[in-house]
Amino acid sequence: MSKQEIGVVGMAVMGRNLALNIESHGYSVSIFNRSREKTDLVIAENPEKNLTPHYTMQEFVNSLKKPRQILLMVKAGKATDHIIESMKPFLEKDDILIDGGNTYYKDTIRRNHELSKTGINFIGTGISGGEEGALKGPSIMPGGQKRAYELAAPILEKIAARANGEACVTYIGPNGAGHYVKMVHNGIEYGDMQLIAEAYALLKNTLNLNNEQLASIFRIWNQGELNSYLIDITKFILTKQDEKGHFLVDLILDEAVNKGTGKWTSQSALDLGEPLSLITEAVFSRYLSSLKQQRIAASKVLTGPKPKVFNGDKKSFIEKVRRALYLGKIISYTQGFSQLRAASEENHWDLNYSEIAKIFRAGCIIRAQFLQKITDAYTQEPELTNLLLAPYFKEISFLYQNALRDIVIYAVKNGIPTPTFSAAIAYYDSYRSAVLPANLIQAQRDYFGAHTYKRIDKEGVFHTEWQE
Amino acid sequence: MSKQEIGVVGMAVMGRNLALNIESHGYSVSIFNRSREKTDLVIAENPEKNLTPHYTMQEFVNSLKKPRQILLMVKAGKATDHIIESMKPFLEKDDILIDGGNTYYKDTIRRNHELSKTGINFIGTGISGGEEGALKGPSIMPGGQKRAYELAAPILEKIAARANGEACVTYIGPNGAGHYVKMVHNGIEYGDMQLIAEAYALLKNTLNLNNEQLASIFRIWNQGELNSYLIDITKFILTKQDEKGHFLVDLILDEAVNKGTGKWTSQSALDLGEPLSLITEAVFSRYLSSLKQQRIAASKVLTGPKPKVFNGDKKSFIEKVRRALYLGKIISYTQGFSQLRAASEENHWDLNYSEIAKIFRAGCIIRAQFLQKITDAYTQEPELTNLLLAPYFKEISFLYQNALRDIVIYAVKNGIPTPTFSAAIAYYDSYRSAVLPANLIQAQRDYFGAHTYKRIDKEGVFHTEWQE
Repeated sequence: MSKQEIGVVGMAVMGRNLALNIESHGYSVSIFNRSREKTDLVIAENPEKNLTPHYTMQEFVNSLKKPRQILLMVKAGKATDHIIESMKPFLEKDDILIDGGNTYYKDTIRRNHELSKTGINFIGTGISGGEEGALKGPSIMPGGQKRAYELAAPILEKIAARANGEACVTYIGPNGAGHYVKMVHNGIEYGDMQLIAEAYALLKNTLNLNNEQLASIFRIWNQGELNSYLIDITKFILTKQDEKGHFLVDLILDEAVNKGTGKWTSQSALDLGEPLSLITEAVFSRYLSSLKQQRIAASKVLTGPKPKVFNGDKKSFIEKVRRALYLGKIISYTQGFSQLRAASEENHWDLNYSEIAKIFRAGCIIRAQFLQKITDAYTQEPELTNLLLAPYFKEISFLYQNALRDIVIYAVKNGIPTPTFSAAIAYYDSYRSAVLPANLIQAQRDYFGAHTYKRIDKEGVFHTEWQE
Repeated sequence: MSKQEIGVVGMAVMGRNLALNIESHGYSVSIFNRSREKTDLVIAENPEKNLTPHYTMQEFVNSLKKPRQILLMVKAGKATDHIIESMKPFLEKDDILIDGGNTYYKDTIRRNHELSKTGINFIGTGISGGEEGALKGPSIMPGGQKRAYELAAPILEKIAARANGEACVTYIGPNGAGHYVKMVHNGIEYGDMQLIAEAYALLKNTLNLNNEQLASIFRIWNQGELNSYLIDITKFILTKQDEKGHFLVDLILDEAVNKGTGKWTSQSALDLGEPLSLITEAVFSRYLSSLKQQRIAASKVLTGPKPKVFNGDKKSFIEKVRRALYLGKIISYTQGFSQLRAASEENHWDLNYSEIAKIFRAGCIIRAQFLQKITDAYTQEPELTNLLLAPYFKEISFLYQNALRDIVIYAVKNGIPTPTFSAAIAYYDSYRSAVLPANLIQAQRDYFGAHTYKRIDKEGVFHTEWQE
């Protein structure tokens, strides 16, 4: 029997769609799922495709050309370990496992290390784009052994999304680098979504707009600097009606759920000493949203400014929100890319930020026109410490900061919560402050804990007996 | 030879001062340190005290009455494990180890569990108050076996700080509960310090006050609602001069250092699904402050509002800052105590929030008059979900929120960074919002990832084919 070119384990929607995507580019694909029903279903639904079902791990592994390429699309965590263990007896040196799940990067580092002892290559890859992306072209962020990546690259490049003709896949770095970049991608996604939600609430509540009007604002925004997948789908969402002709978005419970990747991003930022304030506020906002019953109770007893009729220039207000959203987004990405830099140094990953922004341009959830600006900034200055210092972003900060200030001021005055817009301007003003009041904090620490301090007028480390 | 009543391991400043504190209450104390020089120094400096030095672990352990009580004051982490391992061969069933270091609570849970297998009790206790508190009376937060705590309680109650005659020590809960509460105490300390730093910067930069004037504002504040240790020491710090007669605080480098407990608090909040936004912004503010060279560079290229001469009513501005600081503090504690509640449920600790606020009233770094209000709130309603809903805090929110709004608006307008003041009002306005725009986030998640959503008009879990 002839051998298949690649195997896919896990026939849930992402695994199935990736198998079909790979097959559509002319590859023969072996498929496997822990329960045979799902495998059979995929075969039954796709009778004409070059997919070969297997029902034991041994048969599945043996059906593949060597060195084998096996894509794992199973639940992150213990399920992944379990599958790897059950597969290991049949694998050989130089085989390549590719974990495409939403795996915690430290697990990928561990698995890559353990498998490398027996000569098995382990690629941990972020895959973004949801169900549709998996089928039609996702953004792919693979990390692991570089030579193994190069063997897998022809397939990955064919199935990836394309931006300006370039495949949205690039070698990210060793061991957990790919999954780390995917994690930060997801953190950025949390930030984008919360910023959009705040903009939506500001427009809706202030200008008293209906969903059609709101959708039309997002449609116009999507034609400019904000052009992106999330803005694009927002305009569809706003006008989608249920079977009774009601706007669906208005019937959806306002409790945002999360699957943990935003949280991981924030926790990693805290470990790295990186001020990831905006994305973290977005994570906290989801947590707060989930306290619906508490919020309803609190709304009856905690007071706030009375709602006022908006008397200003509506068009100018909308433009201010747009500018605030764009600058807020820039500040969020600034923090996220700064975190990537810190993680790259910590883990010796040698990340290429220009390439990372490039593969975000299509396929993934945060795909946006403005990612080209990030690519440009890092192409021009690969060692750029902070995106805000690049000419384009400096210019936007200069032009749009007053809009961001005005919007935050309006929101605070009127009791409309804008946690991420507020975090954006607080970061901007902190980062551009040559002097911050942290001298007082250092003095306090030395006062009560003898933690010492440095001085601005001389070298050294000092301690003072403050009370003498 | 007669046996000593308690042993202290680790003769760095905290261990030494606690040994002296215990001895001063009439107890005989064995002391031990890994290097004998420190032990000898403590004995040499305190010749008349009832301290007995020991130079081997076996002698040290054998010198103690059974069941033995041993206070560990060594570096948190591996050093603690190492000391426990070296001591274990000489310990017996029912002995009590008390770890008073700044230990990560999960390590305490692990050690408590492991040692309990051999019948050894392990108390993990937070001890706050710095060097001076250790000597004169700290706030003590012990967790572990309750019966073991009861045996140790007589000594702990004698050495603890006193508030209104009551010892600032109480049994917190099983295993890691004591160290967890100490961790959140430290997180709250980060929040308090950053809020004070922002208030200081606002007053200094807006009103152009000198240090004497600033100190006098803090002195007055310390006589009112804000009465607390940190406000008290701030007024001293502001006027402390160096040997050349320069104000020391102005010569201290504005890079705030941290030892990780604030970070741990934020990371735990993220795990628990708790919106701990203010303390987390305080942690991030320390991180940002440490980028001094980047900030200096950014200050030259990133623009902001031009500094303006303040034309308003200075007295009223100062009062607004005071109110903003007090309400900000209340919101920070609200978040911190909400996190304690979540941790208590998660770990089955059955924490008593009224007692916890009580032991914070003296000895520790966050000691403050207003903690009595928290004690009162939880005494009145032990199952209170959120402090802001208690009558006193509701009233302060009502009275002071406009001041907080005005200060944040002033800061944003004038380019003065106030990350924690901003986080405070964002939390307040989010928490009191019966409706938040998280419905849009849920719709987006369902659109791109088929993550499903709930509805407000009917039970169930729904998914929509948004694009059809």
